[in-house]
Amino acid sequence: MSWNSFGHIFRVTTWGESHGPAIGCVVDGCPPGVPLTESDLQHWLDRRRPGTSRHVTQRREPDTVRILSGVFADDRADGPVTTGAPISLSIDNVDSRSKDYTDIQKVYRPGHGDFAYDAKYGVRDHRGGGRSSARETATRVAAGGIARLVLGAGVTVRAAVVAIGGDSINRDAWSWDEIERNPFWCPDAAAAARWETALDQARKDGSSLGAVVEVTAEGVPAGWGAPVYGKLDGDLAAGLMSINAVKGVEIGAGFAAASMDGRTAADEMRAGPTFLSNVNGGVLAGISTGQPVVARIAFKPTSSLPTPKQAIDRDGRELEVTTTGRHDPCVGIRGAPVVEAMTACVLADHFLLHRGQTGRPSSAF
Amino acid sequence: MSWNSFGHIFRVTTWGESHGPAIGCVVDGCPPGVPLTESDLQHWLDRRRPGTSRHVTQRREPDTVRILSGVFADDRADGPVTTGAPISLSIDNVDSRSKDYTDIQKVYRPGHGDFAYDAKYGVRDHRGGGRSSARETATRVAAGGIARLVLGAGVTVRAAVVAIGGDSINRDAWSWDEIERNPFWCPDAAAAARWETALDQARKDGSSLGAVVEVTAEGVPAGWGAPVYGKLDGDLAAGLMSINAVKGVEIGAGFAAASMDGRTAADEMRAGPTFLSNVNGGVLAGISTGQPVVARIAFKPTSSLPTPKQAIDRDGRELEVTTTGRHDPCVGIRGAPVVEAMTACVLADHFLLHRGQTGRPSSAF
Amino acid sequence: MSWNSFGHIFRVTTWGESHGPAIGCVVDGCPPGVPLTESDLQHWLDRRRPGTSRHVTQRREPDTVRILSGVFADDRADGPVTTGAPISLSIDNVDSRSKDYTDIQKVYRPGHGDFAYDAKYGVRDHRGGGRSSARETATRVAAGGIARLVLGAGVTVRAAVVAIGGDSINRDAWSWDEIERNPFWCPDAAAAARWETALDQARKDGSSLGAVVEVTAEGVPAGWGAPVYGKLDGDLAAGLMSINAVKGVEIGAGFAAASMDGRTAADEMRAGPTFLSNVNGGVLAGISTGQPVVARIAFKPTSSLPTPKQAIDRDGRELEVTTTGRHDPCVGIRGAPVVEAMTACVLADHFLLHRGQTGRPSSAF
Amino acid sequence: MSWNSFGHIFRVTTWGESHGPAIGCVVDGCPPGVPLTESDLQHWLDRRRPGTSRHVTQRREPDTVRILSGVFADDRADGPVTTGAPISLSIDNVDSRSKDYTDIQKVYRPGHGDFAYDAKYGVRDHRGGGRSSARETATRVAAGGIARLVLGAGVTVRAAVVAIGGDSINRDAWSWDEIERNPFWCPDAAAAARWETALDQARKDGSSLGAVVEVTAEGVPAGWGAPVYGKLDGDLAAGLMSINAVKGVEIGAGFAAASMDGRTAADEMRAGPTFLSNVNGGVLAGISTGQPVVARIAFKPTSSLPTPKQAIDRDGRELEVTTTGRHDPCVGIRGAPVVEAMTACVLADHFLLHRGQTGRPSSAF
Repeated sequence: MSWNSFGHIFRVTTWGESHGPAIGCVVDGCPPGVPLTESDLQHWLDRRRPGTSRHVTQRREPDTVRILSGVFADDRADGPVTTGAPISLSIDNVDSRSKDYTDIQKVYRPGHGDFAYDAKYGVRDHRGGGRSSARETATRVAAGGIARLVLGAGVTVRAAVVAIGGDSINRDAWSWDEIERNPFWCPDAAAAARWETALDQARKDGSSLGAVVEVTAEGVPAGWGAPVYGKLDGDLAAGLMSINAVKGVEIGAGFAAASMDGRTAADEMRAGPTFLSNVNGGVLAGISTGQPVVARIAFKPTSSLPTPKQAIDRDGRELEVTTTGRHDPCVGIRGAPVVEAMTACVLADHFLLHRGQTGRPSSAF
Repeated sequence: MSWNSFGHIFRVTTWGESHGPAIGCVVDGCPPGVPLTESDLQHWLDRRRPGTSRHVTQRREPDTVRILSGVFADDRADGPVTTGAPISLSIDNVDSRSKDYTDIQKVYRPGHGDFAYDAKYGVRDHRGGGRSSARETATRVAAGGIARLVLGAGVTVRAAVVAIGGDSINRDAWSWDEIERNPFWCPDAAAAARWETALDQARKDGSSLGAVVEVTAEGVPAGWGAPVYGKLDGDLAAGLMSINAVKGVEIGAGFAAASMDGRTAADEMRAGPTFLSNVNGGVLAGISTGQPVVARIAFKPTSSLPTPKQAIDRDGRELEVTTTGRHDPCVGIRGAPVVEAMTACVLADHFLLHRGQTGRPSSAF
Repeated sequence: MSWNSFGHIFRVTTWGESHGPAIGCVVDGCPPGVPLTESDLQHWLDRRRPGTSRHVTQRREPDTVRILSGVFADDRADGPVTTGAPISLSIDNVDSRSKDYTDIQKVYRPGHGDFAYDAKYGVRDHRGGGRSSARETATRVAAGGIARLVLGAGVTVRAAVVAIGGDSINRDAWSWDEIERNPFWCPDAAAAARWETALDQARKDGSSLGAVVEVTAEGVPAGWGAPVYGKLDGDLAAGLMSINAVKGVEIGAGFAAASMDGRTAADEMRAGPTFLSNVNGGVLAGISTGQPVVARIAFKPTSSLPTPKQAIDRDGRELEVTTTGRHDPCVGIRGAPVVEAMTACVLADHFLLHRGQTGRPSSAF
Repeated sequence: MSWNSFGHIFRVTTWGESHGPAIGCVVDGCPPGVPLTESDLQHWLDRRRPGTSRHVTQRREPDTVRILSGVFADDRADGPVTTGAPISLSIDNVDSRSKDYTDIQKVYRPGHGDFAYDAKYGVRDHRGGGRSSARETATRVAAGGIARLVLGAGVTVRAAVVAIGGDSINRDAWSWDEIERNPFWCPDAAAAARWETALDQARKDGSSLGAVVEVTAEGVPAGWGAPVYGKLDGDLAAGLMSINAVKGVEIGAGFAAASMDGRTAADEMRAGPTFLSNVNGGVLAGISTGQPVVARIAFKPTSSLPTPKQAIDRDGRELEVTTTGRHDPCVGIRGAPVVEAMTACVLADHFLLHRGQTGRPSSAF
């Protein structure tokens, strides 16, 4: 509890609405002595920032993060380090155009949280989706930057978009470097070229496309996570499902494992230990095995479209709604850095939990 | 926290190993005044019980549940009701054959938690998987029986197996009644017939099969759940991912939504409100919409097979292991009642959380 | 968890250091629809504000609070109301004189958290006590203002200073109005006059005085709180003990009850119900009885004194330290509004928890 | 959350009523590899057991504890050790005489939780106080036994009764050995002799007496605990206040500190570090200092008396009630081992939390 926090020792609480003065988060439980400056976090925010290509929302937000607490240049340190106190991060909203939303003040946009929020609370901030806006995810990306520093250089968390609109990459062509060369977080240059066409067409059609993001965490030692309701994959599932527009999460082979034969799904072991496969995505019985932790996340296509949709308003009247705000034609693209950040946060928390209960920083192996 | 509890107001803590004297759970936060007897819970345990057909483990466990606290026949009540105090439930283990496991005392069975547990804790109860055994799920089924009573007659939670080994049901043939007529929780008689053949073949081959379970909760009012890290689907994802052998969870259209066009994924609305589709599986922005809540869960095929697999032991030595204990050739089958139970528990918790924060038992509509 | 949050449904997370750019808090779980403006909170902050008399610290902080999220003037509301989203509050630090602390950068001031923080974290923000400064309590007072609105007009939470330096008030002379007429939160005019002399003398002597604060919450219905580790008085004790300089908390007769005879300590009842006494301070078995909830809190004298004290520095060297910053000669005085705020927050949380579990807004009576 | 659990990593959940079949608890988060047998716990239960002298309740409960899970004799260990899985403990109720309570089935005994429970839940288990019975504390004592093993031999937690009925011990005569020689947990032989007379007289008068218990934890390293709402003394206050009949908790000098002069309350330091006094009871700013952690707890006299008291029943009718069950004339006596157990549990939890966040098992010094 409550509703806007996650994690246990490394615990993140976020706040803010799309069109309020700012958004932010408080990161509690961070180990002391971690060197941390705003530029460490800005790096990751810049990768999620809107307005960087025609394939993402044209909202112009610099997403400049400020550290308001929890960091100090102690007389024993070379520069600012975390003090163990809560780290408050704040990002101003500078390009919110609330007027874009005046027309839909009383309207429940289909596929959005509008109706559900109103049914729950009896009141809602309609401007840009209010609290349910994907703008909130900027704060997670900032928190994820801290989580990466807690994990250290030994753990690498990277996400890629592996399918858009049902068109999947060729996994044999996977190149992490390629991700930096296209605006889609796509590790396959050929797929990126096809997606460019597909997204231009979708925009032309007044439509949008779904996507699948894959995240891999390398360097996670065996032993993180815990039975039974503190499983590493359980916490990952919750964290990844909390991202806007996500409708599914799978670990390792995921749903494909349900079609497998038991003789091929076991991830046999040889001395090392090494594993002959990674069907289980680096997690067995909720605990990391030392293999890469792999998850895939399904993003639905955004429902914010310039095409008229059947809807109702707060008074129950039927009408049609056309969304005219600035939106991502494929929310999964900017979802990739958010997936990375959530994965890093969950891992950092489980590192500290494991150390707390067992006194072991890592695997016995 | 910690690791063996889930839920917030309606909070379940489970304990016990496969081959210990008993397993059990404590259900805290249950509303007072709910009529409750052991037979209310036994009904659901009987549906999960092992040994009921040749397609599930032959371990003979009566799974008789005892209520040790939290229920009393108050002078104002007609019979035993919950008192608001924690409800302690206990189930004896009566047919554990620990000897079956002597051979693997030092062996890490591939695909199981053996290695991961040892890497984490440096110690392990090897008998029948110890804490990581699916036997633990009996306690959740008992807790789920209480959750159903909290939800009341207005909410119906039902699961079905919709695919085994990659062979899916015909959804047009769906019949909830059919589930009671075959040993597979299968709503399609024709698929059930095919699965019987497939499972007999898998057993003959010394193999096992994966499965997909679908759960539907009807009658959930709009307004349960919460942004952003307390989402109804986030808690469902965590709860369902915590079930043994689960590798994926999806809500509504799930991964299929990632291939959809935005114009068809929005669940348009008409007065009522009614929805013209349910791509979002009854949850928008983490809050229930009043539509049926729908999730699908991927179970991998069990790794406990009578076929030799490459493995290592605690000393790092390579060897082959063949599992001779009594096991489910398709763990997804007995997973169905567990999926129901977890869904009921998550919903009961969100009902109480919603009532707590807002004072509203249900939707404004 | 973690360390800078309290409450369960009504949950407050605070952040910030004495000499950072700002302090603040996030209030999560607030019911929706509560009318809320900054002036509602400013009222309470002004009562805690430093620099209002010569008997409190001369630091000049306007303590202007800003609401950054969670409040919106919905088209159905007359003005801004809470939306159910987290409420972020921020207060700028405008009069921090970090230079005052340069001399003690490496010194552990006795009676302060300096040594303990460094022993724990190996790093510390020495400026003004950093995170351990009583400045943090301003954020609680702001959160308490929201809690009061959640509790509504039926519940009144008021604190008074009942002893300073061992000189207690005459309880027969108790007047709540008198509290507004002296700078000591003292309900007894005669005691206030004596305390003025005592505090002037303490300042002259380079010393400080302890105090006892008493808080009363009237209008709390029977039924709030819960056995066994969720007791209303347990949560009050934790919340009040968390205030800087507090060394003791008692409920009702408190320590005096330990000297009582069982025949006089029972709070006998008559129809109504009415109680013939309130030895138990409105709480029995952890649950409110409908009587006023009464607690008393012991504040030690501040250790920040212009008198030399024996101390050590970070390198373990012995030295003497004299504190020259601006400090409260009696921290209990400005503790009174903090005690009120913490009490209001705990009560609001238990109101929501009670409503969540039982569906009852108040007592059956 | 919820209401019957405490602790964060080392987390204890208790269940059971005075007259149900059993009481018990689940200890989650215990580090693995801790040697543990039932006799380790029985030792502490025997010290709390009823019926051991005429000065405590004559209920005859052997309080035999069973370990149902979480412990296993691994092939690498010499005997049973904790596995990291939840430890389920159970104690049968064998001497509950529910008939003693038939007369008060509808009566609210003054000073007990009867009315408050009914106001909250609308239902209650009247037999022996149900969930609010001090019998629940046996489970904490068992959990405390595990906590002591987690803390290790370096930390010693000991409680003493320092006052009964307002008659305090002579602190100069303090002898820990003396505690084993009298039935009052009294460290001063002369006081023990006086208390024997006083308690005999109280029983003769149909009355009861309150008590003050003092607990000291030696060997706690500097650095356990945390600002601001995770303070070591805040958690101690909550844990100790949760014990039946407790009305006050103070740390170090406690309420006496409120009468002190700031020049004497600071606990000045010399190299070592050593402290010249311990006014702060081993805790500064919520974090341990390496000095002994000292707390005092006020127990009210029990309200269960053979003397008629004015009361009402469930229907609001006025009547007189005389308690005829078997009760402790001074509940503080058997409270002493419970105070020890709660202190040990809180310390074990903070040890693990500190290790989790900082990676340091103890102080930098």
